[in-house]
Amino acid sequence: MAHLALESAVELVEQALQRAGAGTAMARAASLCLVRAEAQGLASHGLYRVGQYATHLRNGRANGAAIPAVVKRKSSALLVDAQGGLAFGACGLAVDQGIEAAREHGSCFVGVVRSHHAGVMVDHLRPVAAAGMVGLAFSNSPAAMPAAGGSHPIFGTNPVAAIFPRRQGDPLMLDLSLSEVARGKLMVAAREGRSIPTGWALDPQGQPTTDPQAGMDGMMLAVGGGAKGAMLALMVELLVTAVIGARFGFEASTFFVDEGNEPGLGQVFLVIDPGALAGSASFLDRVEQLVDEMLSDENVRLPGARRLALERRAAVEGLTISDELLHQLRALAEAPPQ
Amino acid sequence: MAHLALESAVELVEQALQRAGAGTAMARAASLCLVRAEAQGLASHGLYRVGQYATHLRNGRANGAAIPAVVKRKSSALLVDAQGGLAFGACGLAVDQGIEAAREHGSCFVGVVRSHHAGVMVDHLRPVAAAGMVGLAFSNSPAAMPAAGGSHPIFGTNPVAAIFPRRQGDPLMLDLSLSEVARGKLMVAAREGRSIPTGWALDPQGQPTTDPQAGMDGMMLAVGGGAKGAMLALMVELLVTAVIGARFGFEASTFFVDEGNEPGLGQVFLVIDPGALAGSASFLDRVEQLVDEMLSDENVRLPGARRLALERRAAVEGLTISDELLHQLRALAEAPPQ
Repeated sequence: MAHLALESAVELVEQALQRAGAGTAMARAASLCLVRAEAQGLASHGLYRVGQYATHLRNGRANGAAIPAVVKRKSSALLVDAQGGLAFGACGLAVDQGIEAAREHGSCFVGVVRSHHAGVMVDHLRPVAAAGMVGLAFSNSPAAMPAAGGSHPIFGTNPVAAIFPRRQGDPLMLDLSLSEVARGKLMVAAREGRSIPTGWALDPQGQPTTDPQAGMDGMMLAVGGGAKGAMLALMVELLVTAVIGARFGFEASTFFVDEGNEPGLGQVFLVIDPGALAGSASFLDRVEQLVDEMLSDENVRLPGARRLALERRAAVEGLTISDELLHQLRALAEAPPQ
Repeated sequence: MAHLALESAVELVEQALQRAGAGTAMARAASLCLVRAEAQGLASHGLYRVGQYATHLRNGRANGAAIPAVVKRKSSALLVDAQGGLAFGACGLAVDQGIEAAREHGSCFVGVVRSHHAGVMVDHLRPVAAAGMVGLAFSNSPAAMPAAGGSHPIFGTNPVAAIFPRRQGDPLMLDLSLSEVARGKLMVAAREGRSIPTGWALDPQGQPTTDPQAGMDGMMLAVGGGAKGAMLALMVELLVTAVIGARFGFEASTFFVDEGNEPGLGQVFLVIDPGALAGSASFLDRVEQLVDEMLSDENVRLPGARRLALERRAAVEGLTISDELLHQLRALAEAPPQ
C-alpha cells in the first residue's frame, strides 16, 4: 500500500485529467471531488475513477474543452449546460447559482444537462448547508434496473441526496442509490461462491435469481423488492431528463466500458431557504430536536457522520491506496498530452 | 353490500362532517377527496376515515372552523396555515398557489403547517398535471418507523408522491409510503396465522420479528430492510417539519385512537414548470418516449393506471360498500350537530 497526502493526490489527479484533455478548471473540480470521495472511504467514487474519466476524455465520451454555463434562467428555475464535460464543475455552478436564487426567491430548482458521472451527489450540496439552506440532489445513471414488473434495464440506480445544516458542527448528509443493494455485494457473493437473496437482482431474461453471476449479467432490482424503489427511480429519471432536457439512462452507454456515447445525463438540485418558511432559528432548533430524538437510540448514527470522520482523518493522515492504483495515476499524469 | 352513487356518497360524507362541526368548505373538500379515494379502490383512505375525522372534529383534534390561509410568501416559497383543520382544503390552496407561483417563477415550494391526515397525497397534485406542470408531494404522519439502527418509532410512513402530465390521457401518478410493507399485510398474516419475513417490522423492544402480532405491537420497518427507506423518511420528515414549521411525527398522536392532540403535521408540495426548463413540447415528447420504453415489457403497468380505471368505473357504477359502513355514515349524517 502507498501513502499520499491529500494535496499531492489532488495535484496528481489534476495532472492526469489535464493530460487526458481536461481544461484547468474542469480538472481541478473533478480532482477535488474524487480525492474527497476517496478520503471519505467511498472508493467506488474515488481515485479508481480517474482512469475511466481519462479514457472518456481521450476517446470523446467526455469533452475536456467544455465550459459549463447557465443557459436558461427564470427566477427559480435554472438550467446549466455541462457541454458534455465532466460533471463536477457544472454541478458546482448549478449549486452556487441555486443558492443565490433561493436567497432571493425562497427556493430554486436547477437542472444540469449534457452531463457525465456526477460522483458523490451529496458532496455537491455542501455549499448549500454552508449557506444555511437545505438541498436535495438527484441524478440519473446508465440503465441498470427494470421498471416495476419489467424485465429489461431502464433506470439507473438514480441517486438521491439531501443536506440539512445544523446549528453547530457537521450537516446531516443523506445519500443513497435506489438499488436494493450495491452491485459490489453481488461481486463479493460470486467470489465467495454464495447465493444471493431473491429481491436483489434479475437474470438476463428478467427472471428472479439467487445466482450472483446471473444477477451481474442481468440487472439490479430497485429498493423494496423492485416496486417502491422503481417508482422512486421513475420519479428521479423524469425529473432529471424530460423536465430539464437530459438523456435517459437507457440512452447512455455504461461508464464501465471504454467505448460508448457522450452519456448526456442529467442532475437536478433543489435549494430551499428555511428562512423564507419556518425561519432560520426555528429550523435549526427543530433539527437539533430531531437529532436528539434519533440519538436517544444508542445504535443510531447520524447520516454522513462516518464519511466526515474519515475525511477529517484523511486530512491529517493522508490517503492509503494500492501500489497498483498509485502506479496507474502516475502513469496517467505522465502520459502524452491529448 | 350496499350501492351508492358518487354524488350521493359525497353528500352523505359532507353532511356527516358538517354535523361533526366542519365548515361548509372544509366538509366539501374532505368529502370529495375521501369519495375519490374510495372510488380508486383505496379503502384505507376512503369512506372508512369519515368516522375518524368526525370524532376528531368533535373532540377537538381537528378544528372545524379552520380557514386555511397563505401566511408567508416569497416568490417561490409559500407557507399555508391549515389552522388545525382537516388537511384537504389547505392542501388544495397550497397546490393552487404553487401552480400560480411556478408559472411566474419557474418553480415553487409550498408548505402546509398545523395540518391533519392528508389522505391520498398524489390526488392533491392533479391540478398540477392539469396545468401542464410537474408536482412532488410529501407528508409526515404519526411515528411508526424507527431511524436506521433505532429501536423506537420516530418517523411516520411518510408518503412520497409525484405527478407527470402526458400529452394525452392520464398523467403518471406515483404514490408510495416509505414502509417496507403496509401495516395491513401484518394484519392479514396475523389473522391467517402466518409468520412474516424479517425486514418488515420490529417488536416493541426494537428487535427483528417474524411474528405479525409482535410487529403490530412494535413498529414497521422502512423500505429496503430499514436503512435506505429510513434515510428517505428522515429527508421527508425534515422537509415537512423543521423547514416549514410543522410538528414531528413523534409529536403527533396516532390517528387510530379517538383521544390525542391536534396532530399539527406538515405537507410539502413542489411545483415545477417544464416550460421554464426543457420546454413543454420537448418535455411531453420525452415522457412519451419513456412510457414507450416501459411498456415494451409486457408486465409493466403505468403508475396510477389501475386507480384511475377503478375511478372511472365508479363514476358509472357507483361505490359498493359494506352495509355496516353505510349504516355508520348515515348515523353520522343524522347525528346531532356539534
